[in-house]
Order: sequence, then C-alpha cells, then structure tokens
Amino acid sequence: MKIGVLGTGIVGSVIADKLVSLGHDVMMGGREAHNEKGQAWASKHPQNAHYGTFAQAATFGELLFACVLGTKTLEALEMAGDANLNGKTLIDLGNELDFSTGKPHIFASWDNCLAERIQNRFPKTNVVKSLNTMNCYVMVNPSLVQGEHAVFMSGNNLEAKTQTRNLLKSFGWTDHMIVDLGGIETARGVEMLMGLWVSLWGVIGNEPFNVGIFRKA
Amino acid sequence: MKIGVLGTGIVGSVIADKLVSLGHDVMMGGREAHNEKGQAWASKHPQNAHYGTFAQAATFGELLFACVLGTKTLEALEMAGDANLNGKTLIDLGNELDFSTGKPHIFASWDNCLAERIQNRFPKTNVVKSLNTMNCYVMVNPSLVQGEHAVFMSGNNLEAKTQTRNLLKSFGWTDHMIVDLGGIETARGVEMLMGLWVSLWGVIGNEPFNVGIFRKA
Repeated sequence: MKIGVLGTGIVGSVIADKLVSLGHDVMMGGREAHNEKGQAWASKHPQNAHYGTFAQAATFGELLFACVLGTKTLEALEMAGDANLNGKTLIDLGNELDFSTGKPHIFASWDNCLAERIQNRFPKTNVVKSLNTMNCYVMVNPSLVQGEHAVFMSGNNLEAKTQTRNLLKSFGWTDHMIVDLGGIETARGVEMLMGLWVSLWGVIGNEPFNVGIFRKA
Repeated sequence: MKIGVLGTGIVGSVIADKLVSLGHDVMMGGREAHNEKGQAWASKHPQNAHYGTFAQAATFGELLFACVLGTKTLEALEMAGDANLNGKTLIDLGNELDFSTGKPHIFASWDNCLAERIQNRFPKTNVVKSLNTMNCYVMVNPSLVQGEHAVFMSGNNLEAKTQTRNLLKSFGWTDHMIVDLGGIETARGVEMLMGLWVSLWGVIGNEPFNVGIFRKA
C-alpha cells in the first residue's frame, strides 16, 4: 500500500526501509522540501521510495507513521495539514523526551499523553499508538529479542487497529505478542513506560531488549 | 528479624502475613493506637505478630515496609518520626493513585517520584523502591505467575538492597527475576509503570499477571 512516513531520523529510516522491503510504496516526509537525509534515504532504494515534505508524504500515504521525536509530532502534523490526515490511520511511535541537558527528561504522564493530544487535535484521523516502547531495530525485527515479548496497541478505531496489527505481523510480531490495550487513553501508560525503558537501558545497554507480559501459572 | 510494616490495608496484611510465616517478628503500624484491622491482623497469629502506631512499628522494626497508599506515605512517615527511621532500610511499595472519581488517576511522573521524595525528606533512611508493580498476592508468591517475570529494586544503599534481595528471595523471587535498576532515581520509571499496569488490569482482569524483561536472542 502507499504509506507516508513522517520523520527523517533513525526511527523513520528503519521503519521506511522495512516497509519498502515488504513491497510498500513509501514516501518519507520532512520539514523541508530539500532534506539531505530524506533524499539520501529515497535514493538508496531503486524503487518504491520517495521523499517529500510532511504535507506531501501525508497526501501520498493511505496510512501514515509518525516517527518524529514526540516533542515535535504535533508541529509536524500541523505542517502535514488536517485535510491530508482526515480519515487516515496514523500510527504514532512518538516519545516526548528531552536529552538536551545530557540526562533524559521524560514528559509522559497520566495527564500528558501525546497520542491523546494528537487524537483530540485531529478527531477525523484514526490514531493508533504502537511500537514506541522499544528501539527501532526491535520494532521491525522482533526476533532480535528472545521469547514472547510484547508490542502494545492503543486506539479508538477498530479498523485502524486491524491495519496496524497486520503491519505488525508483517514485521514479525505474532498475535500473541500484540497486546491491544483498548482506547487511545491507554496510550498514557504505554508512553509512561519510557521511564522504565531509560533505566533498563542504563542496566542492559545497547543490546536489544523489550518488556513482555507474563500471565497466571 | 524484627520488621515493622506500616499500613493496615490489604498490601500491609499480605506482606505482614508472609513475614510472620517466614518466622519474622512483625509489628503492623497504623495511624491510631486502636485500629480494628491492625488488631484483628495481630490477633489471628498466635505469636510474632503485634500491632501499634506508625511510630511504635517504626521503633520496633530493624527494617521497615511502607505499605500505605502512596499518597499517604510521607504523612505516615512523619508520624513514624525521623528518629525511628534513621539508619534503617525502608522498602517502599507505594503508588500514588486516586480512585475517588471512579477512574484511576496516577500521579507518578519523571518529576514526581514518591521514593525520591521519601529519600530526600529522610536522608538517613535507606529507601529501596520495590514490589509496587504487581498485585500483593504476586509480591509474596511469584509462582502465581508463570515464567521469569520481574521485580525491580531501586535504591542508593547497597546493603539495604542486599537486605531487600534476601527478603525477595525468601518470598520466592530468584536472582534472575530481581532487576536492580540502580539508584533511587530509577524508581521514577518503576512508579510510572503503574500507568501500564492499570491498562493491563483492564484487559486481563483480576488474574495474576506481571511484566518481565526479555533479552537479546
């Protein structure tokens, strides 16, 4: 399908690479019409890979991934434009982090959920929060981590969650690993998980890891 | 050993029961000298079980568990008194939640960590955050959940964490399940995990569950 990937950083590149490898037609979108990273990304794929502005990528995609840093997501979506987002599934991978002081600062809280704010601002877009709880290499290759670890989905629209589930399965996630938490408000806890992730990263380092859910014996 | 358990609710009762069953001498502490729940708890054990005020339980214990609702922990510790807390290990199980509106509200955030505030207010007490990320039956009986799920520890004092580890192991946790995240500041993410817990509880219900860490394949 035609997919727009908003964001030209490492997360956007890894997601867009995977989508192209799966045969999708992908436009990566950035702030400027001339973006070196975006153009370099598109040029490395012989076909099915394009670069444009946020608005062009949103127009292009039947489904969209938001892969910008969470603190910039709403700004990027404003640049993408309501008309280009309406009626589409938007899979939001954002985490609101600030590393500018050298130490991470995490903005997610029960009262400050990025995915909820996106859904409120763009009520005609079907926002699904997913994939924000692991590094991007694990997102597109869950077998890097051993066992039945988890990827979460939160969203109000069932069809959008089915689309997301099917994409996740094409990335290698099984139904058993995909945990549908419910409506978009459940993204609160999923975004707050970044607090634990940062501490685990401090203990484990750059090796792949993820959380998972264990059930009754 | 002599252990004080601050809190007469379900978490305090389950922890105190387990400690008595392991042969510890336990005083449960509450706000009032005459507390029906605390006195009923003590009376159901033929020996090694006592009830008193927060100050009496803090005085009694060589090591303390804080099992009050997180929003009341600092108040309970003020009542316990600095002099009775100094030099002791305090294992904090608190989560700052409000259910008074019918829907849960979670106060934990990167800027609002209960365990850090306890440690700052009582600098001579060795605070360890642990066990707050699961229901109390799983805390004292991890085999209710299948597999190598996780219990986290955060704290600045290594000896206090060794004491905590040994108690956790006596509850049935293995070294592999115990994840020492580092200093007390890592309790931020552990407290923020309550956001995900509430959503998982919505999906799974009252059956035992827990999170765990999956490592590289």
